[in-house]
Amino acid sequence: MPAPAKSARVFLSERPKGHISDKTFKSETAALPTPNADQVIVRVDYVSIDPAMRGWINDARSYLPPVQIGETMRSIAIGTVVHGNDQFKEGDVVEGALGWAEYVVISAKDVQKRSPPEGTTAIDYLGPLGMTGMTAYFGLLEVGKVKAGETLVVSGAAGATGSVVCQIGKLKGARVIALASASKCSYLLNELGVDAALDYKSPTFVKDFRDTVGYLDVFFDNVGGEILDLALTRLKKNARIVLCGAISAYNATGQPEGIKNYLTVISQRARIEGFIVFDYKHRYPEAEAQMAKWINEGKLKRRYQIEEGLEQCPQHLKLLFSGGNTGKLLVKISKEAAKY
Amino acid sequence: MPAPAKSARVFLSERPKGHISDKTFKSETAALPTPNADQVIVRVDYVSIDPAMRGWINDARSYLPPVQIGETMRSIAIGTVVHGNDQFKEGDVVEGALGWAEYVVISAKDVQKRSPPEGTTAIDYLGPLGMTGMTAYFGLLEVGKVKAGETLVVSGAAGATGSVVCQIGKLKGARVIALASASKCSYLLNELGVDAALDYKSPTFVKDFRDTVGYLDVFFDNVGGEILDLALTRLKKNARIVLCGAISAYNATGQPEGIKNYLTVISQRARIEGFIVFDYKHRYPEAEAQMAKWINEGKLKRRYQIEEGLEQCPQHLKLLFSGGNTGKLLVKISKEAAKY
Repeated sequence: MPAPAKSARVFLSERPKGHISDKTFKSETAALPTPNADQVIVRVDYVSIDPAMRGWINDARSYLPPVQIGETMRSIAIGTVVHGNDQFKEGDVVEGALGWAEYVVISAKDVQKRSPPEGTTAIDYLGPLGMTGMTAYFGLLEVGKVKAGETLVVSGAAGATGSVVCQIGKLKGARVIALASASKCSYLLNELGVDAALDYKSPTFVKDFRDTVGYLDVFFDNVGGEILDLALTRLKKNARIVLCGAISAYNATGQPEGIKNYLTVISQRARIEGFIVFDYKHRYPEAEAQMAKWINEGKLKRRYQIEEGLEQCPQHLKLLFSGGNTGKLLVKISKEAAKY
Repeated sequence: MPAPAKSARVFLSERPKGHISDKTFKSETAALPTPNADQVIVRVDYVSIDPAMRGWINDARSYLPPVQIGETMRSIAIGTVVHGNDQFKEGDVVEGALGWAEYVVISAKDVQKRSPPEGTTAIDYLGPLGMTGMTAYFGLLEVGKVKAGETLVVSGAAGATGSVVCQIGKLKGARVIALASASKCSYLLNELGVDAALDYKSPTFVKDFRDTVGYLDVFFDNVGGEILDLALTRLKKNARIVLCGAISAYNATGQPEGIKNYLTVISQRARIEGFIVFDYKHRYPEAEAQMAKWINEGKLKRRYQIEEGLEQCPQHLKLLFSGGNTGKLLVKISKEAAKY
């Protein structure tokens, strides 16, 4: 498994105003630097395409430094070590922020060796055993603190995180109402077993929401904007609103639509709480073990949409915001990567 | 101290759209009912005028049932028992939701006998020892969880609750920045000892806020609207936003101005939390003891603005929303009430 002399990469070319355009990213093929003793060379096999990546390319104060102009686009990925060091050997499967590239020279401390537990595969480290799964697990259980018998509403419910949130909600005994576009509702109802799935684009959505939800204990929000504002009108006492993402706002050119119904947060003693999954890093092993167990027992289903080709990454990131995907979106980079 | 046969009262006549008008309340003098064995007759001495009362007259789902048309306006008050039962004797000073009336017949279980600790007076049960003081105490310490060395920003800082929040903040070692109208800033700085006081109506307010605050750990919000939205742009990691009130929104005829900067709640892992002080009722004794101790030690100052006359209550409630008061606003109802 020799390391090549050159590698293609896709880098940030200019910061987008609003949606990602053809000018946002550029690609090039360049010589791979020679690794030092602390570094390894990794072949990138699959990259994860996540809504949060839109935020990473804004020049704004946030939980991670912005990707710089000229820098390879940051992306969680799994890959295979092709040039090891004293910590990793050739053929090791690793996970880390490898980025949009064919090969990367990276510090050994920035990647983690991954040996999928029985019943799981390496790409599950980009799904339920990875960032989106950890987000669902800690967001719902630690921030949302959902309890049996409670009513849980999930927006962006068919997405990588939302689909795991729905299932953990059911496993914990909650009544789960999933919000998604019409074409995904049957998947949520029939495959993931939610109690109700509502088409958020329906002309009767507001009424459907009120009639079906009644009042809610936990709102796990991936969308923000109008849906968040609607949810705030239907809070039970001590309701928890988990702000996981706000996909409706990530591409806004001005400020996003304002949240008007915040007075109910006072009267219902509710809590709106944001979180970043990386803060729970020290507890990932516990969550990974639980998720692997659920997968093995057939209690946690996962669905991947796997696209191909490094050059296609920008357009798939862009498409994520039009709601085109169901389940976890990955792009397979290396033709030599294992098939799943 | 004989009970009169009749009593004047001010009752809700029609629900206001927006600001309280001359038609919102009416008054009448009517016969006092005969108390049963569980009831007492109380002469109303001082009523508390609070922003929250605006919410109590809306026909909306909230933490208390709405005051009904024809019902005496709800108001926390202190009074003197003029007709006792087996629990209360004539002359006892009591506190409760006596309402806007000269005399009330009320269940003994709905009032509490009050014996001010040394250094305090009965009206302190409408101030730091009462609802507004308890709101400041539990809101700042239990919801805001302010710690020494943190930056605390308080909106509506010269009001009954805000002024106590500022002082508890200082007592706990926080850097305290008070937001109020220009005329109240010197009181906050010189008498209450805040670190900075900013005029929220100044044309340079946004810049002043950024320059003076930097980034904040706790925002204790009595105002809502634009000030809340500005505060959200200046959150430190794990910041807590205590939603105590939203005086800017209480009289809105449409929906209040929306909160646009909620994405920072995610990136800074912040928490926006509403609370209702009544939920802490079981812990009032502990807070009252602490507040009385601080008052006695000269560490907690309080200021009252005492108006007179039952008929004046509606206009004082209305004036509360134009920012006219400094400190706790009371209306003295009975000419026989003790002077403070």
